[in-house]
Amino acid sequence: MKQTITLDTQSHGVTYAKGFEAIGIQAGLKKSGKHDLALIYTKQKAAVAGTFTQNKVAAAPVYVSKETVATGTAHAIISNSGCANACTGPQGLKDAHTMAYHTAQALACDPTDIIVGSTGIIGQQLPIHDIVKAIPNLVDSLSEDGSELAGKAILTTDTYSKTASTHFTIDGQTIHMGAIAKGSGMIRPNMATMLCYITTDIAITPTLLQKALHACVDKSFNMISVDGDMSTNDMAIVLANGAAGNKPITEENEDFELFQEALMAITVSLAKQIAADGEGASKFITIDIKGATDFESAKTVGMSIANSPLVKTAFFGEDPNWGRLICAAGYAGVPMNPATTVLKIGGVTIFKNGMGAVYNEATLKQIMNEHDITVTVELNEGDANATVWTCDLTYDYVKINGEYHT
Amino acid sequence: MKQTITLDTQSHGVTYAKGFEAIGIQAGLKKSGKHDLALIYTKQKAAVAGTFTQNKVAAAPVYVSKETVATGTAHAIISNSGCANACTGPQGLKDAHTMAYHTAQALACDPTDIIVGSTGIIGQQLPIHDIVKAIPNLVDSLSEDGSELAGKAILTTDTYSKTASTHFTIDGQTIHMGAIAKGSGMIRPNMATMLCYITTDIAITPTLLQKALHACVDKSFNMISVDGDMSTNDMAIVLANGAAGNKPITEENEDFELFQEALMAITVSLAKQIAADGEGASKFITIDIKGATDFESAKTVGMSIANSPLVKTAFFGEDPNWGRLICAAGYAGVPMNPATTVLKIGGVTIFKNGMGAVYNEATLKQIMNEHDITVTVELNEGDANATVWTCDLTYDYVKINGEYHT
Repeated sequence: MKQTITLDTQSHGVTYAKGFEAIGIQAGLKKSGKHDLALIYTKQKAAVAGTFTQNKVAAAPVYVSKETVATGTAHAIISNSGCANACTGPQGLKDAHTMAYHTAQALACDPTDIIVGSTGIIGQQLPIHDIVKAIPNLVDSLSEDGSELAGKAILTTDTYSKTASTHFTIDGQTIHMGAIAKGSGMIRPNMATMLCYITTDIAITPTLLQKALHACVDKSFNMISVDGDMSTNDMAIVLANGAAGNKPITEENEDFELFQEALMAITVSLAKQIAADGEGASKFITIDIKGATDFESAKTVGMSIANSPLVKTAFFGEDPNWGRLICAAGYAGVPMNPATTVLKIGGVTIFKNGMGAVYNEATLKQIMNEHDITVTVELNEGDANATVWTCDLTYDYVKINGEYHT
Repeated sequence: MKQTITLDTQSHGVTYAKGFEAIGIQAGLKKSGKHDLALIYTKQKAAVAGTFTQNKVAAAPVYVSKETVATGTAHAIISNSGCANACTGPQGLKDAHTMAYHTAQALACDPTDIIVGSTGIIGQQLPIHDIVKAIPNLVDSLSEDGSELAGKAILTTDTYSKTASTHFTIDGQTIHMGAIAKGSGMIRPNMATMLCYITTDIAITPTLLQKALHACVDKSFNMISVDGDMSTNDMAIVLANGAAGNKPITEENEDFELFQEALMAITVSLAKQIAADGEGASKFITIDIKGATDFESAKTVGMSIANSPLVKTAFFGEDPNWGRLICAAGYAGVPMNPATTVLKIGGVTIFKNGMGAVYNEATLKQIMNEHDITVTVELNEGDANATVWTCDLTYDYVKINGEYHT
C-alpha cells in the first residue's frame, strides 16, 4: 500500500533527522541583540542540493554556496542575519569565504563543505571579525535540540520562525526530514525566494537530490508573492546525510517519488507560512487557478492577481472587489475570456457570464472577514491548474518598509 | 530655421484648437454630486486616432470607440465618470451604444462619429437613463470655454485635472493642440493607460494621425507606473479637424515631424502629471536608464524599479536605499552587471564598482526631502536610454484603495 505523507503536527525542525545538530546564538550583528548566527551540522557527510536567487545582483554568500553545492556534498550550513553581505564588492566575497573557512576549521572539514547564507541590510560590509570570534562558541554549542534557536537566528522582519517536519519509511527504515526557513519581504517567484534549510537522513545521490529540490521549489517557493520584489540573497538548501540507513536512492523509482512527495509537503508548508507572514500581512490568500491552457499560464494569472496592489488592498479592506480580480486576470497576457471565466471567493460565485453574479452578501462578508481566504478562478480554457499564495497590502507594509532605514 | 515646440505656460485645454467646444456637467452618476459627464465636439468632422487598453477584460465603451476610430473620422467624445461600464455583459455594450446613439441624435451626426469613454467602479451597470436624460442639456451647454469643466467631469480619485496645450506654425497657419486627461490609479505601461482626449485643428490623414499617436503613447503613457495595475477602460484619443487651414499632411515630411513633436510634448506632460498624481503619492520620481543594450531593456529596468513596492516605500520614507534600487535593476531580467552599473540620486553617485559609494550625506538628505527626485541608472551595456516616471507608495495609497468599497 502506498504511504501517505503527512506533516508532523509539531515540527521537529532541522535536528529531527539522525546525525544533525544545530544552534543559534547572539553574535552582535543585530543592533536589537537578538539571535543572529546559526549553524547546522552533520558529522556524516551529506549529499547537498541548492537553488539560488536569479537576481543578477546576487550576494557574496550565494557565490560561495553555489561552489559548495557544485561539489555535491557538504557538512554544514552557517547563516547570519542582520547583514546581507550583498553589494559589498571583493571584500564581501572575501568575507563570505572567511566565514566558510573558519567554520570548516572549527568543524575539521574543508571550506567547500560549508554552505554560507546571509540576510539583512544590503550594502553594508559584514562584521566578519564578530562572526569569526563567535564561531568557536557556535560550534561548541551545537546540540540535537538546537533547531529552534537556529530558526530564530536567521529571521529578519519575520514575526515568527517557519518550520516543518515529516517522516516516512523506505526499506523498513524511518526517514526523517525537517526544515527551518525565513522570509517575509522581497518574496517573489522564479527564484529560491528566501533562506530555507532542509535536513534529512535519507541516502540519495546529489543529482537526484537536486532534481527533487528543483521540482519542489517550482511548486512551492516559486508560487508565492508578498510584494513582487526578488532578493539578492535567497537560497533553498537540502542536506541528506544517509544516516537512516536505507539503500541509497540512485534512480527515479517509487522511493524517489515518495521522497519527493515528502520534500514537496515540507516546501509547500514553508512557502505558505512565508506568504502568511508577509510584511504587515493581515490576511493569507490562496489563489487557485483552474482550467488554463498550461501550467505557466495558470501560474501567470495567479501571480498577476497576487501581485496586484489593488487586489491586495481590497482584501485588506475586506471588500470582495471582483472587478479588480478579473481586471488583474485580464492583463496577465495569457488566454482568458471574461465571458467564460468564473470567479469564486470562498466557494461563492461572484462573477460569471462576463458580469457580477448574484450572491448572498452576508455569507460573502463573513468569508471576507476570515484570516484565510481562497480565490478560485476558473478559466475554462484547458486542463492546467496552479495554486499561488499571497497576503494583503496593509498600512503596516508601508510602515515597515518606509521606516526601515539604511 | 526649425521651430522649437514648447508647452503653453497656462494650458488652454481641448477648446484651444479652432472649432472645438466642450463642457462638463453633473448628471448624477457620482454619489458626491461632482461633475461626471463630459462632451467634446467639433462641427467640422475630424480625423480620429486612438489607442486602447490591452486588458483582455476591456470595458464596453472601448469596443464602441474602437469601431469609431476604425472609420477614421469623428465629431465628438462623450465621457462619464462614476461608472466604468466594465464587466457589464451584453447590457453594458448596449448602454455604450445607446450613449453614442443619443449623443449623435442631439448633435445631428452618426453614432459612428462618437467616441465613448467611461471610468469608475467596475461591474456596475451604467445609469444609462440618467445619461440619456442629461444629453440634451450637455449638448446645449457646449462652449468654447468648457474645457475646464470637461476636464473635471472625467476625474475619479485624481486630486487635480491634467491638461496641456501648445501651438506652432505650418504653412504660415497657427496650429493649436490641447488636451485633458485623467488617471491616478491602475496606471501601467503597454496600454493607453487612462482617459486622454487631445484636440487639434491641424489637417492630417487619419493614418498618419494614428501613427503619430502610437509613437507618442509608447514614449509617454506607456512609460509611467503608479501601481502596476492595468485598467479595463483606458484610451487616448486625438481629434484633428483641419480648421487651421494648413495643407493637409499626407506624408511623413517635416511638417509631420513637427506635429509629432508637439503631440509628444503634450502626451509626455500629461503622463508626468498622472504619475505625480498617483494615488496617495507624496513624491514624483523620474527614473533615467542610460546605456542599455536596447530601448526595451532600458524600459524594463526602469519599470522594474518603478514597480518595486520596496523602492516606492523607501522614497516615501525619504531613505536613499540604493540596495533596493540595484536589487530591482538586478531582477529585471535584462543584461546588467552590478560591477559596472552606476546609480545616482539627484546627480549624486550612491553606487559604483559593485558597492555603495562615498557621498555627502547632508546633500543627499536634502535631495531625498524634495518632492521631485531623479534616479539615474547607468548600465554601461550599450547606447539605449529610457525615462520612466512614477511615484512613491504611501499610507494614503493603502487608505484610498483599502477603503474604496464596491
